[in-house]
Amino acid sequence: MFFDEGYSGRKYIMADKSYNDGDIVIFGMPMDYTVSFRPGSRFGPNRIREASIGLEEYSVYLDRHLEDLNVHDAGDMLLPFGNAGKSIEMIETYTEQLLKDGKFPVGLGGEHLVSWPVIRSMFKKYAELAVIHIDAHADLREEYEGEVLSHSTPIRKACELIGPKNVYSFGIRSGMREEFQYAKESGMHMSKFDVAEPLKKMLPELAGRPVYVTIDIDVLDPAFAPGTGTAEAGGIASKELLEAIHAIAGSEINVVGCDLVEVVPAYDPSEQTAIAASKFIREMLLGFVK
Amino acid sequence: MFFDEGYSGRKYIMADKSYNDGDIVIFGMPMDYTVSFRPGSRFGPNRIREASIGLEEYSVYLDRHLEDLNVHDAGDMLLPFGNAGKSIEMIETYTEQLLKDGKFPVGLGGEHLVSWPVIRSMFKKYAELAVIHIDAHADLREEYEGEVLSHSTPIRKACELIGPKNVYSFGIRSGMREEFQYAKESGMHMSKFDVAEPLKKMLPELAGRPVYVTIDIDVLDPAFAPGTGTAEAGGIASKELLEAIHAIAGSEINVVGCDLVEVVPAYDPSEQTAIAASKFIREMLLGFVK
Amino acid sequence: MFFDEGYSGRKYIMADKSYNDGDIVIFGMPMDYTVSFRPGSRFGPNRIREASIGLEEYSVYLDRHLEDLNVHDAGDMLLPFGNAGKSIEMIETYTEQLLKDGKFPVGLGGEHLVSWPVIRSMFKKYAELAVIHIDAHADLREEYEGEVLSHSTPIRKACELIGPKNVYSFGIRSGMREEFQYAKESGMHMSKFDVAEPLKKMLPELAGRPVYVTIDIDVLDPAFAPGTGTAEAGGIASKELLEAIHAIAGSEINVVGCDLVEVVPAYDPSEQTAIAASKFIREMLLGFVK
Amino acid sequence: MFFDEGYSGRKYIMADKSYNDGDIVIFGMPMDYTVSFRPGSRFGPNRIREASIGLEEYSVYLDRHLEDLNVHDAGDMLLPFGNAGKSIEMIETYTEQLLKDGKFPVGLGGEHLVSWPVIRSMFKKYAELAVIHIDAHADLREEYEGEVLSHSTPIRKACELIGPKNVYSFGIRSGMREEFQYAKESGMHMSKFDVAEPLKKMLPELAGRPVYVTIDIDVLDPAFAPGTGTAEAGGIASKELLEAIHAIAGSEINVVGCDLVEVVPAYDPSEQTAIAASKFIREMLLGFVK
Amino acid sequence: MFFDEGYSGRKYIMADKSYNDGDIVIFGMPMDYTVSFRPGSRFGPNRIREASIGLEEYSVYLDRHLEDLNVHDAGDMLLPFGNAGKSIEMIETYTEQLLKDGKFPVGLGGEHLVSWPVIRSMFKKYAELAVIHIDAHADLREEYEGEVLSHSTPIRKACELIGPKNVYSFGIRSGMREEFQYAKESGMHMSKFDVAEPLKKMLPELAGRPVYVTIDIDVLDPAFAPGTGTAEAGGIASKELLEAIHAIAGSEINVVGCDLVEVVPAYDPSEQTAIAASKFIREMLLGFVK
Amino acid sequence: MFFDEGYSGRKYIMADKSYNDGDIVIFGMPMDYTVSFRPGSRFGPNRIREASIGLEEYSVYLDRHLEDLNVHDAGDMLLPFGNAGKSIEMIETYTEQLLKDGKFPVGLGGEHLVSWPVIRSMFKKYAELAVIHIDAHADLREEYEGEVLSHSTPIRKACELIGPKNVYSFGIRSGMREEFQYAKESGMHMSKFDVAEPLKKMLPELAGRPVYVTIDIDVLDPAFAPGTGTAEAGGIASKELLEAIHAIAGSEINVVGCDLVEVVPAYDPSEQTAIAASKFIREMLLGFVK
Repeated sequence: MFFDEGYSGRKYIMADKSYNDGDIVIFGMPMDYTVSFRPGSRFGPNRIREASIGLEEYSVYLDRHLEDLNVHDAGDMLLPFGNAGKSIEMIETYTEQLLKDGKFPVGLGGEHLVSWPVIRSMFKKYAELAVIHIDAHADLREEYEGEVLSHSTPIRKACELIGPKNVYSFGIRSGMREEFQYAKESGMHMSKFDVAEPLKKMLPELAGRPVYVTIDIDVLDPAFAPGTGTAEAGGIASKELLEAIHAIAGSEINVVGCDLVEVVPAYDPSEQTAIAASKFIREMLLGFVK
Repeated sequence: MFFDEGYSGRKYIMADKSYNDGDIVIFGMPMDYTVSFRPGSRFGPNRIREASIGLEEYSVYLDRHLEDLNVHDAGDMLLPFGNAGKSIEMIETYTEQLLKDGKFPVGLGGEHLVSWPVIRSMFKKYAELAVIHIDAHADLREEYEGEVLSHSTPIRKACELIGPKNVYSFGIRSGMREEFQYAKESGMHMSKFDVAEPLKKMLPELAGRPVYVTIDIDVLDPAFAPGTGTAEAGGIASKELLEAIHAIAGSEINVVGCDLVEVVPAYDPSEQTAIAASKFIREMLLGFVK
Repeated sequence: MFFDEGYSGRKYIMADKSYNDGDIVIFGMPMDYTVSFRPGSRFGPNRIREASIGLEEYSVYLDRHLEDLNVHDAGDMLLPFGNAGKSIEMIETYTEQLLKDGKFPVGLGGEHLVSWPVIRSMFKKYAELAVIHIDAHADLREEYEGEVLSHSTPIRKACELIGPKNVYSFGIRSGMREEFQYAKESGMHMSKFDVAEPLKKMLPELAGRPVYVTIDIDVLDPAFAPGTGTAEAGGIASKELLEAIHAIAGSEINVVGCDLVEVVPAYDPSEQTAIAASKFIREMLLGFVK
Repeated sequence: MFFDEGYSGRKYIMADKSYNDGDIVIFGMPMDYTVSFRPGSRFGPNRIREASIGLEEYSVYLDRHLEDLNVHDAGDMLLPFGNAGKSIEMIETYTEQLLKDGKFPVGLGGEHLVSWPVIRSMFKKYAELAVIHIDAHADLREEYEGEVLSHSTPIRKACELIGPKNVYSFGIRSGMREEFQYAKESGMHMSKFDVAEPLKKMLPELAGRPVYVTIDIDVLDPAFAPGTGTAEAGGIASKELLEAIHAIAGSEINVVGCDLVEVVPAYDPSEQTAIAASKFIREMLLGFVK
Repeated sequence: MFFDEGYSGRKYIMADKSYNDGDIVIFGMPMDYTVSFRPGSRFGPNRIREASIGLEEYSVYLDRHLEDLNVHDAGDMLLPFGNAGKSIEMIETYTEQLLKDGKFPVGLGGEHLVSWPVIRSMFKKYAELAVIHIDAHADLREEYEGEVLSHSTPIRKACELIGPKNVYSFGIRSGMREEFQYAKESGMHMSKFDVAEPLKKMLPELAGRPVYVTIDIDVLDPAFAPGTGTAEAGGIASKELLEAIHAIAGSEINVVGCDLVEVVPAYDPSEQTAIAASKFIREMLLGFVK
Repeated sequence: MFFDEGYSGRKYIMADKSYNDGDIVIFGMPMDYTVSFRPGSRFGPNRIREASIGLEEYSVYLDRHLEDLNVHDAGDMLLPFGNAGKSIEMIETYTEQLLKDGKFPVGLGGEHLVSWPVIRSMFKKYAELAVIHIDAHADLREEYEGEVLSHSTPIRKACELIGPKNVYSFGIRSGMREEFQYAKESGMHMSKFDVAEPLKKMLPELAGRPVYVTIDIDVLDPAFAPGTGTAEAGGIASKELLEAIHAIAGSEINVVGCDLVEVVPAYDPSEQTAIAASKFIREMLLGFVK
């Protein structure tokens, strides 16, 4: 229904379990039509899978091997190009099903708006849900040029749904004045510029809670992730993002799902963005799923 | 209303007249969200303008100079990203206004769906309208994966609006079996694979009629236009497309508007697609507007 | 044994049958270590599969649809990098099995040397085998800098195995003086520079015979296939290669297997080479298999 | 006289004031003919403007918005290609006029030699002028292969004009032995390798003085600015350059003009260099102009 | 004096003779500072040499081998960047020396202006000199934005020096109205758009005369030579340029020198332009030098 | 015997001594056929040489000039493509000769397996040899998919030859579980993730010993070296690698040879990897050879 059953796409390394046998489900959300700058993140999920061939299946950071997990890679969803409303609906319906089936969802974007329907599904299941949001952009707009369905709005929507004080943003270095005002006044947590240090300080506060982690690859400096839609200079290094993932992995919080979004291969002939993203996914799998 | 008035984008060479002083209006339609393969044609119009710097203002093919025309370049429309329906409405409203003001519209895509609202405007003004469609793809689908607003449907819609026998397609080398059946049964004209020769044969039939010309850059072989969304091998050379434009220019038909669509700069580091497109636009301006 | 069973790679469009249900088997031979210039054709097969997403499943040239065929895509063989001898052995063993199982083999290179073991398998089954070879290079060397296993030698080896008079080369525009002398003296057929016209003249001579067709993408001018290892200016257009494929399809010869080799994605950021190759494969499937 | 009046180029975001209404004037100096390695910085200014579309108009670093400034973007100067002497003269004449009209000049290079005529104009107006120079290269040569007008000489010329002790270089990691000897013996300030820390130490010394700030984008490591003419490994991160700009912004010095040079888009298909440069310009505008 | 003696650059294949032992001298003229659009042809000569590694040393077109010639590759001249006047002087002095020493000069550009001083040297030696000029652009301007030393002027200068009736241009498809008027009125020969056919018609007229052949790679359509400064759509294929070279080779004219200019590697990640140029040079060597 | 004597390749800057006059010999090992991911390092050595043009001959880090050294650049070895065994033999034979002639070898890869035969030669001469290995990957595999000659095995082989306790690895962040177990149990030194700090701590331990230094460019984060075969996110910056080289240069160890491997230009259109590598080579020359 959501996927082309007759089509067998490339899988992420070792994500070779069937849906039924998988505890974790990787799924691509190839939606990129509401972005205001450079589209093309629809090809992100497949290039991340392709780049995973170059990875080891073992993480020396976590001393853990992908063979310890049961991962199903569902491929990319068949979203209706250019229809943001319907695409979001489909993602929500699909992830609700995933959660009902007891799967741990690992979403690959696509633009950041795809996180919004996943968070809605998550919140239906986990009333105590918190969101860790790692990104260069605040994504706190109410609308973009009149459109409420925009890649600039998902975190605002999340704040309104689960309550601002349950949303924790890190690494933010770009946004409208109004977004930063909202961040300050609403009670949400926002750490500007840096990720690993402020995150480590906040993690104890979240101990024991169900947390959804959403990472926009553009939190990295464009040097580390040139292949993204809205690159923003002055970001963190890949090393710091790994440190952040490992900090979450080593904390007491209960990660219940995660995503990585905004990889746009067309702007990266070296493929380094997909290569880095495929490593982050491996660390998220090995670190977030106990 | 449709454009950002405070923003002054780059103009096509010599398109330096004001709206009021211009007989011809160039306008960009940066919409690319319904495409099924590679997006990015939203950056097409501006790269075509940028590439026009490398062009001469004089055409040795037509022995005519851009200074003989009064051209206004309106810049790119402010379309709501990801909202195909509203974008199409805006294009239609805007082009209606252009026609009411007696302007000759020259549209720059964007995906091919943008031609649909322009043709609607055209048909309101010209009841006898015919369409010359030069493209690799039939674009005769009724819908794409359930979406009626898709870059695969504009010519079908045009057929249904102005009558299939008033639509003339050239260069078609890709489509579903159903599209070619429709082409055969509906009474429209479709020339497969080639453009210049069959076009020259049809032009006398169109003499004296108001004609809208829509060119999808992918009618060229990818060798000549690598920077496009859905490249299709086996196409024509730039020389043949120039020959086709010049054939129309030298015919008895009354061109009342035209567009050039689907330039996607991200897939063309050599910029040759935008460079070629900027030349086609010059020849269309000098050849179509008497 | 030859493929990673736990790994499910991307399939060519509609190549979704199981091995047992497939009449045709597509398989990748990601070997590129004996090339003398630019390596990287190991990534060719997967990029051809990826580019096939942008294709229609129906060919307007042949008025035939991929749903009329039963195609299995076996993925890429697990060849030992840097060990040419063993890789060739594995390919031979595998294709022998394919032929024993009654499958029609469609190989994706990889460098041109991969055709050599396939032809050996073919010749064991078909004593009357002829080879149609479409390429920019003669590939008639006895050795390259002392190595007999080289991408410059497969057609020489084929001549020695099945007899020079059973080998038909087309489009050749590069080689050593000795190779052209061999071509002249050995009795093989060689058409220089052009493909479609001389091929059409030779096809009647081959009527009724089992023929293996091997196409090196570099027979195209680099304009049409920039992504290849040893690009050679002055080649044919994609249109002519399609014409050649269609001429074979319409002839009385009995194609018993085919391959397409030397797509090197790293030299083609526009992806046009893989896009063209994926179309040639579709036409070969629909045209060669009755 | 210096600009093509009939031509309306793309503007930097919100740089929409007329010359008369503007307090700040952005102008491009598309000169790149004396460079010894990779030319192409003539396209730098326009790509920086284009990349500014992806930027927010508000800086969260400085809590300031571009709407607080009156910026005119004059476009690119019409410099005579290949005539270094005349180009320099034109830049000097133009910037003298700017200063006479009370404008704050923000120059976009172009090669680094363009800073030389601007500094000459500056020094005519500000006898107490100091220069802050942020760069990978010393640019202290007296001549390059016999040419005194070379991209390797501007800081030497500045030292000779305004006195070495008024020139402060930071981040230098490349040069001839003689240049470093000159730096040591002449009395100028030179901090090697690092920028932000040594700059912060020197700023108090410059309090109250009129200072011109010239930034060569290649002070960044090539990871952060691959699109430059003479990339030099071992540089600083974008974060450190932002820190340096903000340190100047927060200091007591009186910035009277600035430039950013050596962005060469052709070597950066990801556009990250122009994207970073457009952000630096925003921070320089918001930070340097009170 | 003109070359860096201590530096040993890469040689064109088999151009391994010393200056004294060489009958033919290949030399690079890395000048690109007067171009009006995209610079970077300074790197053309070396990339042509590098691409020659992928070539056979034998031409099947001419049945001739590079070992039959004595070629010296002098490397690239040490031209003063940004000083067009002095660069031109150096080229003239050097080529005069070459001719005095009885060498056959084969120049690699660089921009097209480099042909001007070579033609001056040639004319001093050969009073009956004719020039065959193969190019997309007329290059007949008197000046460009006030500069007489411009890449748009060399053929005009040649006409004025050796007389317009001794200049034969082919393939021209771009220029100002005034240039085409000059072409018509001056008595020079100009064939528009095509090369091989009109050239074959003119060759008998030039039989027995000393002729200099200058080829601008942009006569090719950008599909065949994307890596050039001022690409112009609608050009010829590589096959036609080879045909033209072979027509000259087979004619009665006495070629006394030649050049190939305007290869700009930065705009061609596939390297196809340098690959094609290196083949044209081989055919020019084998075809022009008896 | 090992090099094409008739061929004169580009030299590294100032590496202009003859073999006999050279104390140091730079040589390329263009082998890349056993790599498991992206091949193309065969072009690394020449692009490093080409990029060296943009370098200063003086190092401000070490206050030393290349004119103080006598360097011969032997060009690239003529290795038999696709024959790993024979290639390794040739490298060993050649480097043995180098050492017998008292030369300091500086090898340019090629894949990392090329270090293995060099280390064998070294160990024959220096019984006390230690190896400093700077890399992202452990390279401690016994075989790769059954092949013992693989780019994943050289350090394991080195351990087995010279004893694990004489091998010092730094920066390792990727490998199989078994490799890290071996590292731990065998007694070799392995520092994970970081290079400069742990190296500085170990250097005193190596004082006075003959040491071979092998650097895999992928120890850098892909941001700093996108052009490599197996990019691995989370690496060090160029600054840290320079710091490591300078630490070795300033230590008491006796460097007896070194190499730099795995530069793959095809994945780096900005050329930044080769540019960085050419600088590292300069610093290694100036720092390692007293």
